[in-house]
Amino acid sequence: MSWPHYLQQHQPRFIQQLMDFLRIPSVSAEPALLPEVWRCAQWLQQRLVDAGLESVEILPAGEYPLVYAEWLHAEEGAPTILIYGHFDVQPAGDEALWIHPPFEPWIADGRLYGRGATDDKGNMLVPVLTIEALLRTQGRLPVNVKLLFEGQEEILSPDLPGFICQHKARLNCDLAVSADGWQWSESEADLRTGLRGLCALEIEVNGPRQELHSGSYGGALANPIHALASLIAGLHDENGQVAVPGFYQQVQAVNSAERQALAAIPFSESTFLARSGAPALSGESGYSTLERIGLRPTLEVNGITGGYDGPGVKTIIPARASAKITCRLVPNQQPEQIAHCVAEALRQRAPAGITLAVTVLPNAAHPYRMPLEHPGNQSASRVLRRLYGREPYYTKSGGSIAVLSLIEQELGVGTVVFGFGLPDEQFHSPNEFFRLEQFARGQMAWGQLLEELALTKWA
Amino acid sequence: MSWPHYLQQHQPRFIQQLMDFLRIPSVSAEPALLPEVWRCAQWLQQRLVDAGLESVEILPAGEYPLVYAEWLHAEEGAPTILIYGHFDVQPAGDEALWIHPPFEPWIADGRLYGRGATDDKGNMLVPVLTIEALLRTQGRLPVNVKLLFEGQEEILSPDLPGFICQHKARLNCDLAVSADGWQWSESEADLRTGLRGLCALEIEVNGPRQELHSGSYGGALANPIHALASLIAGLHDENGQVAVPGFYQQVQAVNSAERQALAAIPFSESTFLARSGAPALSGESGYSTLERIGLRPTLEVNGITGGYDGPGVKTIIPARASAKITCRLVPNQQPEQIAHCVAEALRQRAPAGITLAVTVLPNAAHPYRMPLEHPGNQSASRVLRRLYGREPYYTKSGGSIAVLSLIEQELGVGTVVFGFGLPDEQFHSPNEFFRLEQFARGQMAWGQLLEELALTKWA
Repeated sequence: MSWPHYLQQHQPRFIQQLMDFLRIPSVSAEPALLPEVWRCAQWLQQRLVDAGLESVEILPAGEYPLVYAEWLHAEEGAPTILIYGHFDVQPAGDEALWIHPPFEPWIADGRLYGRGATDDKGNMLVPVLTIEALLRTQGRLPVNVKLLFEGQEEILSPDLPGFICQHKARLNCDLAVSADGWQWSESEADLRTGLRGLCALEIEVNGPRQELHSGSYGGALANPIHALASLIAGLHDENGQVAVPGFYQQVQAVNSAERQALAAIPFSESTFLARSGAPALSGESGYSTLERIGLRPTLEVNGITGGYDGPGVKTIIPARASAKITCRLVPNQQPEQIAHCVAEALRQRAPAGITLAVTVLPNAAHPYRMPLEHPGNQSASRVLRRLYGREPYYTKSGGSIAVLSLIEQELGVGTVVFGFGLPDEQFHSPNEFFRLEQFARGQMAWGQLLEELALTKWA
Repeated sequence: MSWPHYLQQHQPRFIQQLMDFLRIPSVSAEPALLPEVWRCAQWLQQRLVDAGLESVEILPAGEYPLVYAEWLHAEEGAPTILIYGHFDVQPAGDEALWIHPPFEPWIADGRLYGRGATDDKGNMLVPVLTIEALLRTQGRLPVNVKLLFEGQEEILSPDLPGFICQHKARLNCDLAVSADGWQWSESEADLRTGLRGLCALEIEVNGPRQELHSGSYGGALANPIHALASLIAGLHDENGQVAVPGFYQQVQAVNSAERQALAAIPFSESTFLARSGAPALSGESGYSTLERIGLRPTLEVNGITGGYDGPGVKTIIPARASAKITCRLVPNQQPEQIAHCVAEALRQRAPAGITLAVTVLPNAAHPYRMPLEHPGNQSASRVLRRLYGREPYYTKSGGSIAVLSLIEQELGVGTVVFGFGLPDEQFHSPNEFFRLEQFARGQMAWGQLLEELALTKWA
């Protein structure tokens, strides 16, 4: 039996297994769910063993598990490919917004729904299934593979730098391929040659020791919510630029080649807007939507809380208010440095009558670039061209995958971004889903990619 | 036995009964606790019957109960006094900040702790106990009394206007006395001749249909938290004034007599600050702390929420952000009109890329003034002078009691504010308490007040 035939025959089982995978609420951001992240690692370990992989191990990175596996019996001279993905997922958010519970996956209209369906459980299972098909039908793989699946990507992999540094020798490879990635649409491929970096901060504003009656104290003490609101309002100027000294200092101006490359993509702002459900587009003056997302850095407040949030009215001055901030970064911004600039700007602007605490969080990712000319990208491009019958788009992603720059720094190799999610699949949102057609197509693509990489000349 | 002796003898039982009263979590702001508000009304009904009151009834006002009782057998020519209080309480807030659970009252150092201890269950029980003592020892009261205890004061009595209007005849009286009130300190009395009014609004800012990945959308859509923060930041100017057109239009300038009256009070800003636990005083330029609280209107954001509030990082653009606002008002601001001004200012400043919904809430109170020369205040003043051995302070309260202006409008009589809570008793905050000494002193004071009012000339 050919491996594509094997894949086709086993789709129903693979779908059931992905649903089992999705039932485990491996939310890395919620400490209470840490045991579920470990349970998920155990499920994955067994799945990798079943696929025929070897040396399958759960390894700790901080409090979180990683799962490692390998198969290193390819022909002499074949390259070694490090395959990356993650099995932790975003928090479900407001469960009331989900059609069904987020960890009880369901299928409708050829889509498999559930938290993690596309980001990244569905996508990371794809190469495992391909490897199983290759090993079961051919008894071998065209290349050596090392698989590294982490359980802390959604919290920006705070323990991954230490882990990779510590396991350099074991992770040694010729190329990495990330199964965390996206395509453009059902009929158009997308090879991402860059991702944004990220840094994260928390602001806490403290006022009175505890919440106070707004009649007895209102007007005579600073209100922490007012203070926080004015700090946040000051973080952007009227042109939508981040109003933090030093924020843009290392940012390269967008050049005309980049502009042209993005302008060549048949991107529909109205489709993008409709998908978002927002009333209008917005952002930094002088840039298109694709430029704002791919080429420009941003600062977003991801959450804010303070005072009374129950029904009706509570006439208080709150004791505190807090907010969470993340910045998306572009070359050559350094996460630590940018976080420091933001923290410094906030501290300098702290109004009187409150105390301000700004914490730079360990979650960080460096911006990443992978030249199109890289033999890994060239191989991926050929596979995508064959599979889609047309040239892929070459884009920059607005997202961040911390591991990419780590692999480059520590292992000295580039990473091909080779996932099969589509941008409308509600990752990080309620009712996340993965198209079952993309799930199957991804398995085919990975098989072809491993074959292509075996034929590529490696230094 | 004299009535003061009766009161003395029965303190232990009264304290136990107050603790029973406090065990009922009659939180009017929480719809789920509405049955507890009704259970509390039933407890109170029984207690009023036990005190010897007549026509004791639970009457509905909207979804909330009121408890009415009367005793109308005083000598001919004696005035009829309407006694007001409320048995609903503030939400407990963060229970972790309470030494013991908020609805499991405890006594320490002569203080009875629990939500509602001072505001207002302890204070409203005081005249009931006094009436019991008078009826048991003398078989009669010096005046006719009508008691009206409501269960929705902490949500600003949305159904009270309709209720009072509907029951005008039954509530007809010569004077009202509110058992919801305060004294200055353990050794200094305080007769409040004014309270601030109040209006309430909610702001909701909506952006994307649901929360979105900040990598895929960040920088290209307006963030509802940023929009809300800039709206809130715009509500005050650099002098701490409310930056809303029309907000101060009806406000009378503070006159020198008012200034002098407040300046004569030995108010310690440092004690006030220490009690608040805030790092510094703050507020409208050009006014003292007492003026800011008593004579000037304010706008406070009581709560804000939006986006991710869990542990760690969640890289999203939130779908919405919302805030709760209340304004404290002074003569001659109209709650409806001020709420309208604030809503209008917010709507005109709504940034692009989001939709804004501002809702004026039904919770409102008119500012209230009761001249010191009023015979009711003169009687109260005499009682306080006798009890404290010195002249009371005559102050303006920063708080709001919606019923006061309603009684004036609908029943045509003024209200003496005659409560015995002290300003440090953490009302609306965790670990609210009531001094047992004030509890007993209040009972004595009410007995003397009823006797004084019988001697007062009424038109």
